[in-house]
Amino acid sequence: MNILEIINKKKNKELLTKEELSFAFNGYDKGDILDYQMASLLMAITINGLTEEEVFNLTEIFIESGEKISFEGFDYVDKHSTGGIGDKTTLIVAPIVAACGIPILKMSGRGLGHTGGTIDKLESIKDFKINLSIEEIKESLIKNKIVLVGQSANIAPLDKKIYLLRDVTSTVESIDLIAVSIMSKKIALGAKNIVIDLKVGNGALVKNMNDAYLLASLMKKIGTKFERNVSFIISNMGNPLGLTIGNSLEVLESIQVLKGNGAYDITNLSLVLSAKLIEMHKKIDFKEAFMMAKNALDKGLAFNKFLELIKNQDGILGSLTRAKNEMVIYSQKTGYITSIDAYGLGVEAKNIKAGRATKEDIIDYQVGIELHYQVGQLVKEDQPLATVYYNEVKPNEEKILKCFKIENEKIENKLILGVINYDSN
Amino acid sequence: MNILEIINKKKNKELLTKEELSFAFNGYDKGDILDYQMASLLMAITINGLTEEEVFNLTEIFIESGEKISFEGFDYVDKHSTGGIGDKTTLIVAPIVAACGIPILKMSGRGLGHTGGTIDKLESIKDFKINLSIEEIKESLIKNKIVLVGQSANIAPLDKKIYLLRDVTSTVESIDLIAVSIMSKKIALGAKNIVIDLKVGNGALVKNMNDAYLLASLMKKIGTKFERNVSFIISNMGNPLGLTIGNSLEVLESIQVLKGNGAYDITNLSLVLSAKLIEMHKKIDFKEAFMMAKNALDKGLAFNKFLELIKNQDGILGSLTRAKNEMVIYSQKTGYITSIDAYGLGVEAKNIKAGRATKEDIIDYQVGIELHYQVGQLVKEDQPLATVYYNEVKPNEEKILKCFKIENEKIENKLILGVINYDSN
Repeated sequence: MNILEIINKKKNKELLTKEELSFAFNGYDKGDILDYQMASLLMAITINGLTEEEVFNLTEIFIESGEKISFEGFDYVDKHSTGGIGDKTTLIVAPIVAACGIPILKMSGRGLGHTGGTIDKLESIKDFKINLSIEEIKESLIKNKIVLVGQSANIAPLDKKIYLLRDVTSTVESIDLIAVSIMSKKIALGAKNIVIDLKVGNGALVKNMNDAYLLASLMKKIGTKFERNVSFIISNMGNPLGLTIGNSLEVLESIQVLKGNGAYDITNLSLVLSAKLIEMHKKIDFKEAFMMAKNALDKGLAFNKFLELIKNQDGILGSLTRAKNEMVIYSQKTGYITSIDAYGLGVEAKNIKAGRATKEDIIDYQVGIELHYQVGQLVKEDQPLATVYYNEVKPNEEKILKCFKIENEKIENKLILGVINYDSN
Repeated sequence: MNILEIINKKKNKELLTKEELSFAFNGYDKGDILDYQMASLLMAITINGLTEEEVFNLTEIFIESGEKISFEGFDYVDKHSTGGIGDKTTLIVAPIVAACGIPILKMSGRGLGHTGGTIDKLESIKDFKINLSIEEIKESLIKNKIVLVGQSANIAPLDKKIYLLRDVTSTVESIDLIAVSIMSKKIALGAKNIVIDLKVGNGALVKNMNDAYLLASLMKKIGTKFERNVSFIISNMGNPLGLTIGNSLEVLESIQVLKGNGAYDITNLSLVLSAKLIEMHKKIDFKEAFMMAKNALDKGLAFNKFLELIKNQDGILGSLTRAKNEMVIYSQKTGYITSIDAYGLGVEAKNIKAGRATKEDIIDYQVGIELHYQVGQLVKEDQPLATVYYNEVKPNEEKILKCFKIENEKIENKLILGVINYDSN
């Protein structure tokens, strides 16, 4: 077998056998296949796609590249977001669910393209330990019911490697590779019930509803193949979620949400995702599950869980700071905000180092963008639309301003676009 | 500008501006854009293609990445082959044309995919100097009328870099990138009249006549844009050209052709290519030009030119050797050879180190395959079909044997499939 012939086959839209996929991907894992060859193969896969059989095989290769977690007779849930601008729901959903007595183990990734990763956010918390051993994970899961870790405990290590390369070669927006990446980690991690927050819009990996349904359908098929229940909340990522973009800023906002002072959009989506997990795990009605979630938030139980989590993983919350330099972006007219370009703000946030452009880039946790208005709100001329916190790289004022569309007619920001339920038997 | 956005645009079949192409390609030249990013972009270009405007712009970027040769009032010709298995026509055509008094300056590349490069062949000649300064080139061109050099005298250096990366990322078979690569070097090299030997078949970069016409038409357009005359001979590369594959072996065969003892196919194609150059340069009839070429070959003038070339560039011919280990491939039946799989033999030759699989691979000049029969000939059971010369890597006997198709009916091997003339005014 020869890597050039394998790349060539995919370039010509031919089917790759399990052996060929293994030769390429496990070869890359071992270092026999080089970065530029994998980059070329990934682009061919991104453009020409994979068949279902190739997807199942690649998922298995990813799973088998590392350890699999499974705690005999101990059920826990998992939640995933396909990544959006300002998406900090994991930091809110996990404490809510755990506060309802349901164990949740969440393994998160780093920044992907123009979107931020949950692990980058957690790392902005001083000393927060993102790497736990399997023993530590099990212990914490039983004791605290909540564990948030990085993708490093030898779970699908191949996915981590491929993920970093995709991030810097514009091959993140592949339905097939996204499905394999997400599902291989979810399956290796052992949760029986999984909710996926599938973001759609120009700020997300998935740009339209058609792709969202394709991706959901493919992930559900992978779930069935590997005996997992998977449900999907399809949510709008045309506008940023909540009021902040950037690592420390997003943790600070999550705390506000957990204290009951969050913006409506981020609060409500977090409750829906939590309720879906509670519904699946407890096999109860969605409405009942939603009330349980809301109660945990309103009574401060979720916030206490969050503090417990930080303490359990050695984090020091008080250390969270914003960058010292501030640039205030002022509205140039009076009107209703009809859209905020999530993708555009994601790119600008990346440019000031809130995200990565190359594999070797180091993120600046303190920088980011804070919005003072959301879609649907009225803003007056000369009012501050946003504040940008930055260090070395000065933000591009003009480009950020262009992300805000202000018009005379008010429009509604519809956040939840669809729900795809797991097949309950 | 951002490389990820540029790759993304091409992935989505969008047009790249000249500035974006320059950012990506000149950035790669400077080392700002990394191998894996360029590999990803090259695959997106290979699959999604370039527009004519993008092709013109990229050609200019390649040309401007280095020096341009132009000797005021001094016309010379150039010849190019798109590369086939066993193609050593440059080693024969250049001496014929020069023997007819027409200056020829040929700059050649290294091995590309499963095909060998002329420079690799020349380097199998001990001490042969493949790098000459512009001054040395001019001097030799005036004195000897013949110069064969490597792609290193700072002519389109960006092409050389991209060429090496394409070679190891399965992005060689792109009509657009082939056109840009060939034409940028031809134009920078300053020849007014150019003949391109466009190979078609499973052993060539171009697999079918349709792609051949597309490529020829695109190169002719680039020629017109940059004021050059370009003609094309479309020749069959379903079967290997001549009797040898591998560097030293091919030089030894070229000497046989120049001495008048060559196989018919390689001898005739070399004469046609030479005649086309003579026709264009002298503005005479093709038939007359063909007679001039044949005369130069028959009278030994071309062979003398070849010896002059080797001497002028410090080569020592006597040093050419084959690898010591021999594997003889025997026919398992009696019949006519109806096809010899050029691509298959090219891959096997590469596997025993006659070619490169990765950028860093070192070629073994002594190894290769010598055919004892060509298509159309009768072979008897147990007769030797081929001899493989090898060093460390043992050849795959079974795979090589499979390249020969032997049947009861004799078929004719049609070598020249078409001619596309330059627009003479």
